[in-house]
Amino acid sequence: MSGGRLIGIGVGPGDPELLTLKAVRQIALADVVAYVAAEGRASIARAIAAAHMRPGQHELMLELPMSKDAQPTDVARSTARTRLVDELERDRAVALLCEGDPMLYGSFLHLAGPLLGRFAVEIVPGVSSISAAAAAAQVPLARGDGPLHVLPATLDDATLARTLQLRDAAVILKVGRHLARLRALLDRLGLLEHATFVAHASAPRQRISKLAEVDEAHAPYFSLIIVQPGPWA
Amino acid sequence: MSGGRLIGIGVGPGDPELLTLKAVRQIALADVVAYVAAEGRASIARAIAAAHMRPGQHELMLELPMSKDAQPTDVARSTARTRLVDELERDRAVALLCEGDPMLYGSFLHLAGPLLGRFAVEIVPGVSSISAAAAAAQVPLARGDGPLHVLPATLDDATLARTLQLRDAAVILKVGRHLARLRALLDRLGLLEHATFVAHASAPRQRISKLAEVDEAHAPYFSLIIVQPGPWA
Repeated sequence: MSGGRLIGIGVGPGDPELLTLKAVRQIALADVVAYVAAEGRASIARAIAAAHMRPGQHELMLELPMSKDAQPTDVARSTARTRLVDELERDRAVALLCEGDPMLYGSFLHLAGPLLGRFAVEIVPGVSSISAAAAAAQVPLARGDGPLHVLPATLDDATLARTLQLRDAAVILKVGRHLARLRALLDRLGLLEHATFVAHASAPRQRISKLAEVDEAHAPYFSLIIVQPGPWA
Repeated sequence: MSGGRLIGIGVGPGDPELLTLKAVRQIALADVVAYVAAEGRASIARAIAAAHMRPGQHELMLELPMSKDAQPTDVARSTARTRLVDELERDRAVALLCEGDPMLYGSFLHLAGPLLGRFAVEIVPGVSSISAAAAAAQVPLARGDGPLHVLPATLDDATLARTLQLRDAAVILKVGRHLARLRALLDRLGLLEHATFVAHASAPRQRISKLAEVDEAHAPYFSLIIVQPGPWA
């Protein structure tokens, strides 16, 4: 194994105060701070962590062209991974900043997966957008013996309904262009009144409302719906 | 509404470095730092946050007698809530420390639920034991279009199997005395080889192994199983 070290760092959902002490320490210690950015846009993860980078610290921006579902292409990921490898092969400690939690969706899994075993990998967990949304909306995620189901909005209606009809707590992630469809589905399942919409949890643009009162067809990619048919406690 | 303010603070899964900057600030600012403790034991949440309390800061230990499932009784919760109310009615800012994330299981929901509307409540999300376990074991929780199901171990086999047989990613929480039963269930469903056992994620007593190699009948209450039938990325 090379002396290079990849540290996947969860920087949390958007509020820079939701960085952990461990993330702050590891960012400041790293030889290189890497982060992804949608093509032509600033990196959200970098903005969250910027205050903790050293002046002049070596940075590696991994620009990822996005498909219509806001997913990077395989070629883009492979190119980004090659650039990480270039740094790791120089025995550098590379902090890869990840929005939210590295192990819960996101680019880290795709970028780091093929590097396991080849380089030392360490992962610093972060606060997820799910926890931040629940805190901001003051809607419980799960309690007692109740399950919690986390469902990407890209799943089809039948797959979503199979789980939602259990009437457990559920979170539907990455709402984006699926908003109108999800609202109709939850209405059909009798769950619309139990659904809360949260966009950009913990960030300045945060927005919270009952899903029934959201009337546009499209939502931001970074928005989610909490379905909580149960009482607060 | 009274001038009292309750701040539910997620202190993370165990490693004091997994506190957020916001938690650190709010703890130091609070008039009173409150925390639960199982009867006759030290408070885990207090131990995680202790370094950030002011010398001489007013503390409120809420001792909770536990049932055999490590759940506090309703009477115990009611008594603890009354003690919180006593502080809030004096217009104090009370920081209630919560292991992991306040909205994801745990005592906060039970203690704070009936106080909503009566006092100002703020919630600071924290790193969950789920994210910490996945980071430590280097097992992805969910990626792409894949769901993630969070299931308390207290659910019966039929309820667990209904979700587990979908072969999505799943986390089974609070394993405790259910270990042998869960191992048998996952074996029957052909999922044992995809199951990772993590106890005390991020804490000094952390322990990680393949579930198939765990041979005792009982596990710590603070242990979980990650079921991940998919590849890393």
